[in-house]
Amino acid sequence: MTYVERRLRLASSLDLPALLVTRAVNVRYLTGLSSSNAALLVRQDGTAALATDSRYVQTARDLPGLDVIEARDAAAALLAPGVAVEGHDMTVAEYRRLGGDLPVVTGKVEKLRTVKDETEIDALRRACALTDEAFAQIVGRIVPGRTEREIARMLESQMVELGADKPAFDTIVAAGPNGAIPHHTPGDRPVERGDLITMDFGALYRGYHADMTRTIALGEPAAWQREVYELVSSAQRAGREAVRAGATAHDIDAAARDLIGQAGHAEHFGHGLGHGVGLEIHELPFLGPDRTGRLKDRVPITVEPGVYLPGRGGVRIEDTLVTRADGPELLTLSTKELLVR
Amino acid sequence: MTYVERRLRLASSLDLPALLVTRAVNVRYLTGLSSSNAALLVRQDGTAALATDSRYVQTARDLPGLDVIEARDAAAALLAPGVAVEGHDMTVAEYRRLGGDLPVVTGKVEKLRTVKDETEIDALRRACALTDEAFAQIVGRIVPGRTEREIARMLESQMVELGADKPAFDTIVAAGPNGAIPHHTPGDRPVERGDLITMDFGALYRGYHADMTRTIALGEPAAWQREVYELVSSAQRAGREAVRAGATAHDIDAAARDLIGQAGHAEHFGHGLGHGVGLEIHELPFLGPDRTGRLKDRVPITVEPGVYLPGRGGVRIEDTLVTRADGPELLTLSTKELLVR
Repeated sequence: MTYVERRLRLASSLDLPALLVTRAVNVRYLTGLSSSNAALLVRQDGTAALATDSRYVQTARDLPGLDVIEARDAAAALLAPGVAVEGHDMTVAEYRRLGGDLPVVTGKVEKLRTVKDETEIDALRRACALTDEAFAQIVGRIVPGRTEREIARMLESQMVELGADKPAFDTIVAAGPNGAIPHHTPGDRPVERGDLITMDFGALYRGYHADMTRTIALGEPAAWQREVYELVSSAQRAGREAVRAGATAHDIDAAARDLIGQAGHAEHFGHGLGHGVGLEIHELPFLGPDRTGRLKDRVPITVEPGVYLPGRGGVRIEDTLVTRADGPELLTLSTKELLVR
Repeated sequence: MTYVERRLRLASSLDLPALLVTRAVNVRYLTGLSSSNAALLVRQDGTAALATDSRYVQTARDLPGLDVIEARDAAAALLAPGVAVEGHDMTVAEYRRLGGDLPVVTGKVEKLRTVKDETEIDALRRACALTDEAFAQIVGRIVPGRTEREIARMLESQMVELGADKPAFDTIVAAGPNGAIPHHTPGDRPVERGDLITMDFGALYRGYHADMTRTIALGEPAAWQREVYELVSSAQRAGREAVRAGATAHDIDAAARDLIGQAGHAEHFGHGLGHGVGLEIHELPFLGPDRTGRLKDRVPITVEPGVYLPGRGGVRIEDTLVTRADGPELLTLSTKELLVR
């Protein structure tokens, strides 16, 4: 789909004369321009104007179908009576500065963005392939004495070396007791025999974010470690198998969560099962006990249950998938058998 | 300064019962916690409560002097009558969801953050040293045929290899005509003899962002290239020499801009002269023609004039400095002589 077509889709969904898009990732989705200071006005008739400052204006002028205005105060340059603003992006201070009486809409572009076209899925598939490849390249280099931080760097350098634009987010490497902290920041703790090591990472490719988590064992795992691994693995499989167009966000979450709950670990899985990925690492839709809505076709999503045992450690296993008419297409292909190093 | 001391400074500046800090970088500054979902309530008496979700709550509980509440809806968990919110961070949608009638303040923590303590300056000095070192390591590898993207990757990998947490921002490498685009995204254009190559990059170290730009020549530069380089170099020196505690943001900008204007290039320098750096890559104060306020002591700031000639190319030279009582301390130390490769 071209950027012009994306804007036409947005325009046809507007029930107001025009929408002022200020959220950078939405501007990018609708124009191709990556900028930290740009605003896009999309009118109901499908025409569009873009304002940005001198740093980006030359790039903007090369984009098709846009009236381009050079302005440092991009939003103000495009305001007109009746124009709605993105209430989930614009701050209270900015809203008041612009008059404080504009109509507000939320999440319109984000909703369009959930269903991807094949060009987007291709970029995401490539991002996931780079993620898989980096994992395969470095897993043999995880040995006792390496620090979490070193392992994170190996993964990130390898992804970039292979062709990623950059890491899609800050890599998590959590070993031993740190594995109980779902968003642990990699530190200087050397990994040891007896550790489970959780690695949550992904490549960014042409703006699209891969997201994968694998947990490996360093040295022969203890019985409790195998048990938790098997539980999370079963839950992850159940979650993946529940992913299909038409399924509800709640039911997919429950498919995995129920297994964890039945094993007595309900309170050790405190986050949602997954989230959409695309131009953002976390985007619509979200999978969780209190999430509503049904998945559509061609929606990339993560499935990432975890069990976190305070003071002891944890396991998380995560894939990026995309819904297809005939079942999910798995985009991250690294093995989910427990690797013992 | 400890995190508790920072909160006490904020508390003593409040003229409301309490401030709900929701901006992630401000929460980090005041607590040490890096989280994508946390809110901090600082009361006028200096006590503080932090709410965050299950992913971060264990880390938060180890921080001194904080009441920690586990909540997914962190802001709502801490709201109470009379609590002010950060209007420059909270979105209109969120504000309305929370009731739409809370007092709003803007920029209070950001203002505190402008003046750094010596621990912060040490981290920034290290970030700048890693930036210098990476430049020294890779400059010899810039040869005809390398693409902009490859050069950007070399810089970024080298910084991480040397000990950076990651690049402080997306590296800009702009060669030949692309040098006329101040925020050019590195592409697949191979660099050629006759190009000026502008590289804008920096290391992130313990949360602190270095920012440096150097422009080099590939092959013997043409007369116009030398001329523009000398002009930008003189303007950059004049700007640096104007940096001191007590100087106004406008005057420092003018010291550099006037030289560029006198040479007939006023319209080829469309951005401000510089900006503060710290926990953000762009933070208060900003230097520009219409910026007000005076620099204080111990304020890290960039000085980065440029001249951009559409279709031909450009030059930008940038250092990170910090104001000191007896004149600026230069933190990025790479040579500013025109390197010819």
